[in-house]
Amino acid sequence: MPKFMDVHDGFVGVTEEQLGEAHAADLAIEGDEGVHFEKAWLDPASGKVFCLSSGPSKEAVQRIHERTGHPTDQVFEIAVEV
Amino acid sequence: MPKFMDVHDGFVGVTEEQLGEAHAADLAIEGDEGVHFEKAWLDPASGKVFCLSSGPSKEAVQRIHERTGHPTDQVFEIAVEV
Repeated sequence: MPKFMDVHDGFVGVTEEQLGEAHAADLAIEGDEGVHFEKAWLDPASGKVFCLSSGPSKEAVQRIHERTGHPTDQVFEIAVEV
Repeated sequence: MPKFMDVHDGFVGVTEEQLGEAHAADLAIEGDEGVHFEKAWLDPASGKVFCLSSGPSKEAVQRIHERTGHPTDQVFEIAVEV
């Protein structure tokens, strides 16, 4: 199953609780697309969020994020990890 | 110890072996700055690399990457992870 890293902007000042809620919303429906969100990292100073996931395609990852209200065009397929 | 996610551009077509060499070069000198690079993810199609590290500061992370020949200005301090 391909892995993906996606990047979100605009999460300035978001708290751990809020990030947890956003992540939980993704987890609640990810199965509809065969996606799994493994991890999310937040820098509330810059507003960047990085999400690591696995799934069938970039578009499947994007559809889950769109439905939960945090769409992104920045999805990268991870071919190599070390 | 703070955690950081940094992003590199321009790694188009880089192989697993080449990413491994770049990562090994960082690991070889990271102790000079009290940094540890935990993981690196590559999308060779777009040329994006994401590195997860821990260390005393953004600047410490940047100094290691500069010395090993892959500098970046995109370093984000991870305050929250879920």
